[in-house]
Amino acid sequence: MKYIQSDKNPQVKQWKKLLTRKERDKSGMFLVEGFHLVEEALTKKEDVEEIILSEKTELPPGLDYGEIPVTVVTDEISKQLADTETTQGIFAVCQQPKNTETNGKTFLLIDSVQDPGNLGTMIRTADAAGIDAVIVGKGSVDMYNPKVLRSAQGSHFHMPVLSGDLSEWINKLQAENIPVYGTALENGVVFTEAEKGEAFALLVGNEGSGVNKELLAKTTQNLYIPIYGKSESLNVAVAAGILLYYLKTAK
Amino acid sequence: MKYIQSDKNPQVKQWKKLLTRKERDKSGMFLVEGFHLVEEALTKKEDVEEIILSEKTELPPGLDYGEIPVTVVTDEISKQLADTETTQGIFAVCQQPKNTETNGKTFLLIDSVQDPGNLGTMIRTADAAGIDAVIVGKGSVDMYNPKVLRSAQGSHFHMPVLSGDLSEWINKLQAENIPVYGTALENGVVFTEAEKGEAFALLVGNEGSGVNKELLAKTTQNLYIPIYGKSESLNVAVAAGILLYYLKTAK
Repeated sequence: MKYIQSDKNPQVKQWKKLLTRKERDKSGMFLVEGFHLVEEALTKKEDVEEIILSEKTELPPGLDYGEIPVTVVTDEISKQLADTETTQGIFAVCQQPKNTETNGKTFLLIDSVQDPGNLGTMIRTADAAGIDAVIVGKGSVDMYNPKVLRSAQGSHFHMPVLSGDLSEWINKLQAENIPVYGTALENGVVFTEAEKGEAFALLVGNEGSGVNKELLAKTTQNLYIPIYGKSESLNVAVAAGILLYYLKTAK
Repeated sequence: MKYIQSDKNPQVKQWKKLLTRKERDKSGMFLVEGFHLVEEALTKKEDVEEIILSEKTELPPGLDYGEIPVTVVTDEISKQLADTETTQGIFAVCQQPKNTETNGKTFLLIDSVQDPGNLGTMIRTADAAGIDAVIVGKGSVDMYNPKVLRSAQGSHFHMPVLSGDLSEWINKLQAENIPVYGTALENGVVFTEAEKGEAFALLVGNEGSGVNKELLAKTTQNLYIPIYGKSESLNVAVAAGILLYYLKTAK
């Protein structure tokens, strides 16, 4: 195993750049941190370029990393790569999947969600609900942001999670006769009236302003969740969970 | 209006102590921050002791604060009282409601939830779902933690949110013929099989270990949400949302 001691090492500098969205977008790479996420990343070995291990961390005995190179670094470098305050000292450098094709029947489309915890939780929820693919539109927080990866708890590696133009996706899905349900209080019907079917796409939007109006105008139908009490709205990840499970189990 | 310039002022010291759970428990007081939460707090004026305003913040013209004293402080003191990085410079010092009686029909019982965002989001969701009261058991994060208050977006002021012994609450509810639904993968039924009715209590638990087994053993029935994909579990606030809305709209 290679051992790197200096944080001036060019490879270390390159890894540290992956903490920024700019560099992740440019390089098409991202970094995952912690035993659980590294293990999840290794379920798609073809996308893992290398594993980084703090000198203070033991490589877990059962970890199946195949031919993937492991580089040991000082604890100090490990802390510099970490997004968490108490890092487990293990990282994987991964390629962002390039394949943007999917022939699923159920989709979650995400428009301009800003909070990394919300985006990650929605990716996790879509996975739990057995959704075939998640499409993240422009204006959302980066799906490879460390906090998004943590909140999603490995679901990025369980199904396609793609960047995409949501307007084009709505056209494409509707051309395949897949109904696209927007979420909006205006011109919507209560969600329990949504038609039941094997195939559907759910479109959710920004925490404050909701789904972009131009996208809402293109949907098959817009749904709302009734507010029975005095709160003004639901958290977007909670709303996505209620609607995905309704659509999934309504059949 | 009183004007305080020194952060050595005993009143300022007392307010700052309210940032700790220990002092909130001892004094029975808590602090809310920001225009929206102060406005929500003022819907229950009898529980608001005073308003604190940074010298850099204008008192909003429409703010109905009645006879409640307003103290102006320096921007520096305002920052010391704030839990957020960019504070709006307005606070309310509130009494924790003392009344622990409620004669509602629908309840959310929360056991040992650790994450303030999760607890706050569940309080907000229970409010949205029109739940009559939320009972927070021992071992949970303090419901008056600033991040809980922020995530709940004012729902603390919309319905009773009480500390309580969950075991006693389960007894009490069952004695009133209100079914208590636990959440557990073992010995549970899929949630869509829960019996429908006007009255119910939902019991959710810790992010990692779920609901305490002794509590689960006492419930009327335990429910689970099927995982159709590869994620191991759902976020507890998302799960609470799915179940509350199912129970609420199933009828």
